[in-house]
Amino acid sequence: MNLDTPSLLIQQDTMERNLMSMVGFAQSQHIALRPHIKTHKSVHIAKRQVEEGAVGVTVAKLDEAEVMIDGGIEDIFIAYPITNKQKANRLKELTKRANIIASVDSEVGAKALSDTFEGEVLEVWIKVNSGLNRCGVEPGEETVSLAKYIAALPGLELTGLYTHAGHSYGAKSNEERKSIAKYEAESVVKSAKACEVEGIRIRHRSVGATPTFMDAGKVKGVTEIRPGNAIFYDMVQVGLGIAQPEDCALTVLATVVAKHSDRIVIDAGSKSLSLEKGAHGNESVVGFGHVIGYPSLVIERLSEEHGVIPIDEQCELEVNDTVEIIPNHACVVANLFHEYVVCNENEVVNNWPVDARGGLK
Amino acid sequence: MNLDTPSLLIQQDTMERNLMSMVGFAQSQHIALRPHIKTHKSVHIAKRQVEEGAVGVTVAKLDEAEVMIDGGIEDIFIAYPITNKQKANRLKELTKRANIIASVDSEVGAKALSDTFEGEVLEVWIKVNSGLNRCGVEPGEETVSLAKYIAALPGLELTGLYTHAGHSYGAKSNEERKSIAKYEAESVVKSAKACEVEGIRIRHRSVGATPTFMDAGKVKGVTEIRPGNAIFYDMVQVGLGIAQPEDCALTVLATVVAKHSDRIVIDAGSKSLSLEKGAHGNESVVGFGHVIGYPSLVIERLSEEHGVIPIDEQCELEVNDTVEIIPNHACVVANLFHEYVVCNENEVVNNWPVDARGGLK
Repeated sequence: MNLDTPSLLIQQDTMERNLMSMVGFAQSQHIALRPHIKTHKSVHIAKRQVEEGAVGVTVAKLDEAEVMIDGGIEDIFIAYPITNKQKANRLKELTKRANIIASVDSEVGAKALSDTFEGEVLEVWIKVNSGLNRCGVEPGEETVSLAKYIAALPGLELTGLYTHAGHSYGAKSNEERKSIAKYEAESVVKSAKACEVEGIRIRHRSVGATPTFMDAGKVKGVTEIRPGNAIFYDMVQVGLGIAQPEDCALTVLATVVAKHSDRIVIDAGSKSLSLEKGAHGNESVVGFGHVIGYPSLVIERLSEEHGVIPIDEQCELEVNDTVEIIPNHACVVANLFHEYVVCNENEVVNNWPVDARGGLK
Repeated sequence: MNLDTPSLLIQQDTMERNLMSMVGFAQSQHIALRPHIKTHKSVHIAKRQVEEGAVGVTVAKLDEAEVMIDGGIEDIFIAYPITNKQKANRLKELTKRANIIASVDSEVGAKALSDTFEGEVLEVWIKVNSGLNRCGVEPGEETVSLAKYIAALPGLELTGLYTHAGHSYGAKSNEERKSIAKYEAESVVKSAKACEVEGIRIRHRSVGATPTFMDAGKVKGVTEIRPGNAIFYDMVQVGLGIAQPEDCALTVLATVVAKHSDRIVIDAGSKSLSLEKGAHGNESVVGFGHVIGYPSLVIERLSEEHGVIPIDEQCELEVNDTVEIIPNHACVVANLFHEYVVCNENEVVNNWPVDARGGLK
C-alpha cells in the first residue's frame, strides 16, 4: 500500500466477520436485524447488510433516508422524532419511494405527522426512554397514553415500540452493561404488553445498541435489534469489552510528519480522528485513538490537522513512517472522510464513498 | 426564515465587519495579511479576503490548496510540513497553476522537496516552534542550522520564517495571551536576524493566530499575519476576550425536538457542533456552544444528532422552536456541513458551499 494520508481504511474481512456475527445472532434468536447506517453512511455496506438478511436499515435523518433510497434500499426506519410540518412533508415524499417507519415521542409530533398524512397512513413506532434520558416517553403509563393518542389519529398506524440504550456506552462493568441491556429490553416489552392490555397491538419491539444487542436481543418478547457501530467497532467498544482491537474494521492511516526528542507529530488531527472520548461517558478511552502495533503510544493532543504523541528515546518511528489508528468512535470519524479505502490482506481492493456523509437534516 | 435544521448560518454583515477589521489592522501596521482558509474552506470567502487586500491565503493541506486554485486563488502558502515524495509530487503539480510557498521544518522534508523540484525552484518558509510544541524547529540556532541546510539545496529558495502560537487558545489571562504573542513574534524576528547574520536573507516573518495577530503584528520586524478563525470568531475566542458574542458570524440553527420536565433536546449533536471545548486547553468554554438569547442554558451532552439541555420550569422553549447556537470552535463545525446559509438582517441572501470540506490530504 502506498496511500496518501490521512486515509480511512476498512479491513473488508473484519467487516464481513462483524456483519456475519450480527446476522448470525439475530437468526439464532429468530429476531429481525435492522442495522443503523449512521455508522457507515454507505449504500454499499447497507446493501451487504440487507443481502445477508437485515429486514431493512435504521437511519437518524431524512438526508440519510434519501441517500439510502437513492441507493436502492427499500425498507427504512427513521429512528428520530420528526416533529414539524417541514420535515413531515419531506418524509411524505420518501414514503412514495420506499417502505418507511417513522418515530414519535410526543403528541405534538404525532399530530404534525397525522395532519400531514391524513387520507393516507404512516406507520410509526413510539420511542421509549430506557435510561439515556434524551428523547422518548417513559415506559409504562406514559407510553400507553401516547399509544392511545396515536391510535385515535387518522393518519398514523402504530405498529411498534423502540428504545436506544446509549448510556450503555458509559457502563463501568460488564454487569452494569448487562443490567442496562435487561432494563432496555424490559422497558419496551413491558410497555408493549401494557399497550396490548388496552387493545393496542404492538407487533415490533425493537432494541439493541452495539453494547447491548446480544443481551437485550435474548429477552423474550423482543422482536428486533438495531446495532450500528458493530459493523466496524472502535476503541469505546474495546473499552467496554464488547470487541477486541482485532475486531475493529475501521482505521485511519496517518503519516509521521515531524519527530522531536519528546514527541512525534502525525497528519491526523481532530478533523480526521475527532475529539471523541466516548460521548456517553466511557472512561476506558486513552488518548484519541489506538496506534496499532504501538500499545505504549498515546495520541495526547489533537489540533485540526496534527496529532501529537509523546515518545521516549526507544521510539523507532521516523518522519514519513505511517501508522494505523483505531478511532475512539468510528461513527463520527467516518463522517469526516469522503471515502473508504477498502483493504483485504493489505491490498487495496476498492474505494467506497461515504455516501450520506454530512447528511444532518 | 423557515430553514430546515440543523443549518449552518453566516451573518454576512458580521463576517464583513470581521474581515474589514483584519484588513484594517494589517494596513495600519503596513504588514501583509494572508488569512488561513482552514476555518471557512470557502472559495467565495477566500476571494472576498483577497479582494479586500489579502496578499494570498494560507492553507494546511494540498486538498485545500487545490480547491482554492480551482476557485481562482493565485497565491497560496501551505503552512504544513510536506515531507514525502508522494505529497511533493502533488505539490509540484500545484506550482504549475499558482504561486505556492511550501513549509519545511526538517532536513528530511527539505531534501524530499529539493529532490522533487531539482531543476526548478520551490519557495519555502521554515516553521519555527514558538511554544505550541507541535511541529517546527526551535528558534535561534536550530532555525539557522536548517536555513543553512536549505540554502545549500538546489531545488529550494528560502524566503521566510513562520510560526503558529496555537497555545494562545489556552491562555488563562489577557496578560498571558499578550506574552505569548510577544514571544511568538520574537521567536521569528530574532531567528530571522540570526539567519541574516549568516548571510541568509529572510524577507517574510509571518505570525499571528486569531488570539495573537493584533499584538504579534505590532512587533517590529514582523511582515505578515495569518489569522484564520477571525473571519467568524467563536466561543473559544469569546472566552479569551478576543471577541464578543455579537462578533461571532457563524451559528448553527437547531430545532427543539423534545421537551421533558428536566431537559430539552435539540437536533444538533456532535456531528454538527463537534465535541470541541477548545483543542488547546481553553477553560472558559461552558457546554457545547452558546444558545443565543438564552444565557442560562447549557448544552450539556451531545450524541451524534442530539443535544441535551437541562431546563427548569421557567424555560419557555417548546418543541419545534428553533435556537441559534454559536459553536465553541468554528473551524471544525464548518467542516461538518455541506453549505453555508448566508443571512443578512434575518433574510437568507445566499448559499455558499463549504468547498474544501473534508479536504484532509
